[in-house]
Amino acid sequence: MSSNARAQDRTVLGQEYTQNVIDAMGPQTNPRLREVMTGLIKHVHDFAREVRLTTDEWLAGVEMINEAGRMSNDRRNEGQLLFDVIGLESLVDDITVAAATANGTNGLTASAILGPFWRQDTPHRENGTTISFETPSDGQVVYMYGKVTDVATGKPLQNASVDVWQASTNGLYEQQDPNQREHNLRGVFHTDADGNYSFYCLRPTPYPVPQDGPAGKLLGMMDRQVFRPAHIHLMVQHDGHKSLTTQIFDKDCKYLDNDSVFAVKKELSVEFVPRKGDAQASLELEYNITLAKTS
Amino acid sequence: MSSNARAQDRTVLGQEYTQNVIDAMGPQTNPRLREVMTGLIKHVHDFAREVRLTTDEWLAGVEMINEAGRMSNDRRNEGQLLFDVIGLESLVDDITVAAATANGTNGLTASAILGPFWRQDTPHRENGTTISFETPSDGQVVYMYGKVTDVATGKPLQNASVDVWQASTNGLYEQQDPNQREHNLRGVFHTDADGNYSFYCLRPTPYPVPQDGPAGKLLGMMDRQVFRPAHIHLMVQHDGHKSLTTQIFDKDCKYLDNDSVFAVKKELSVEFVPRKGDAQASLELEYNITLAKTS
Repeated sequence: MSSNARAQDRTVLGQEYTQNVIDAMGPQTNPRLREVMTGLIKHVHDFAREVRLTTDEWLAGVEMINEAGRMSNDRRNEGQLLFDVIGLESLVDDITVAAATANGTNGLTASAILGPFWRQDTPHRENGTTISFETPSDGQVVYMYGKVTDVATGKPLQNASVDVWQASTNGLYEQQDPNQREHNLRGVFHTDADGNYSFYCLRPTPYPVPQDGPAGKLLGMMDRQVFRPAHIHLMVQHDGHKSLTTQIFDKDCKYLDNDSVFAVKKELSVEFVPRKGDAQASLELEYNITLAKTS
Repeated sequence: MSSNARAQDRTVLGQEYTQNVIDAMGPQTNPRLREVMTGLIKHVHDFAREVRLTTDEWLAGVEMINEAGRMSNDRRNEGQLLFDVIGLESLVDDITVAAATANGTNGLTASAILGPFWRQDTPHRENGTTISFETPSDGQVVYMYGKVTDVATGKPLQNASVDVWQASTNGLYEQQDPNQREHNLRGVFHTDADGNYSFYCLRPTPYPVPQDGPAGKLLGMMDRQVFRPAHIHLMVQHDGHKSLTTQIFDKDCKYLDNDSVFAVKKELSVEFVPRKGDAQASLELEYNITLAKTS
């Protein structure tokens, strides 16, 4: 047999090589890790075989990943964005939520992906205050309010935290933009005894995902549109209830059908309506949120 | 339908979501890139579905990739190593070589992976000189020599470059080790009119892959042995012939059956034999190399 034929036997056509890599895991491997790594190795190898991936192509992928890592820090997660543009975060979000709510719960607020711009150190703010500290001239201010309730009982949840963040009208989150003050357009609010929260924010506007790293480069290579539809991020937490991470989308904005990171769900679209008698805001949005008990 | 059932329809059970991500590629996408990305998206999504990958698990993977990128520079490629330990580089090497030699060529020297320690700027050295500039006290010096020939005609190839690199007996390549001088244990030799090359090097010794990054951490989590069997790296190039990247393995060393990066092929094992009458070396190795013409 020629060495070429042998090489084909071993890998391109056969699965023995892959099984050998899987079987190298030792007895002390955590069972869940073994399950995940078995699936990962199998699919990564099958992918390489199916498309006949070459060394040069693989090295180009490695360089993309290394570059994403080099750009990532506590204010930016380019590795995450790289997977977002191929739809993985949205998929694992659905898988995770489906597993956590396996019994099914009608009326539960739908989830959406966290994305790379959440910050752990966002300050608490008082209900009724604003998150917009340098409202841009092209910005429309929205008074957003609502109630957080238990999805099963309908009872209001007191002291739920509502963590909100959004980009400014220039398409940048504060950590991307030296001209915005720290923690502009983000805040953590806490519901009152009736489960109510409220704050002033901006009507969100579409923005392109960052173009200066490998995720943007990959989008360009795939001839994809780079914008995210206008959205506001929310993370809602309450002791004894499952955490909710979601995004709400302006029903009138572009890109709802071709979000560059595939996060849109129909049930998450909202309508901003005119607000009367408030000098601070021309629009308002009532958005009520339901949480499921931890089992 | 509950939002949970809808989520399952959309992603966990269905393929429509994945097709939507694939179909987002625009008409200007390079056809080969479209083929590669279609396979990648399909397999990454199927992997996530099959193992029910959760957001936390996915984020742990993202952090591993970001950390690999942060550690990588022109002297170290941790992203590459991360894929090496799940056997991907060895697989794409075989795929690439199988495609390049599709007609089959008996007697062609087998390939092996490049690995993360090759350097582009290694200096040319004269035949018969050494690559070991600070021979460690536990090192055995080998006189290595051989002929580079055309695999079809058997004719010697003049001026072929033989790029060699190896770790020292402490398990470190010079770029990992502040105590080795630059380009220690590496050199580029050129064959003479008869196709001959020769140099002094060390008998290679097994070493563990670096433990200070995510690849080492992953090996630990998988309860895997971390050593590479003793080997010498070679990259052989000649105008008009296909480049060969390979590794030769000491047939008497440990870990031939459980190389941490799955690079060993039986036909690449070699035997170091005693050398007489040479004060510089106690062992020798004749290693002849064949190259295939570019088509």
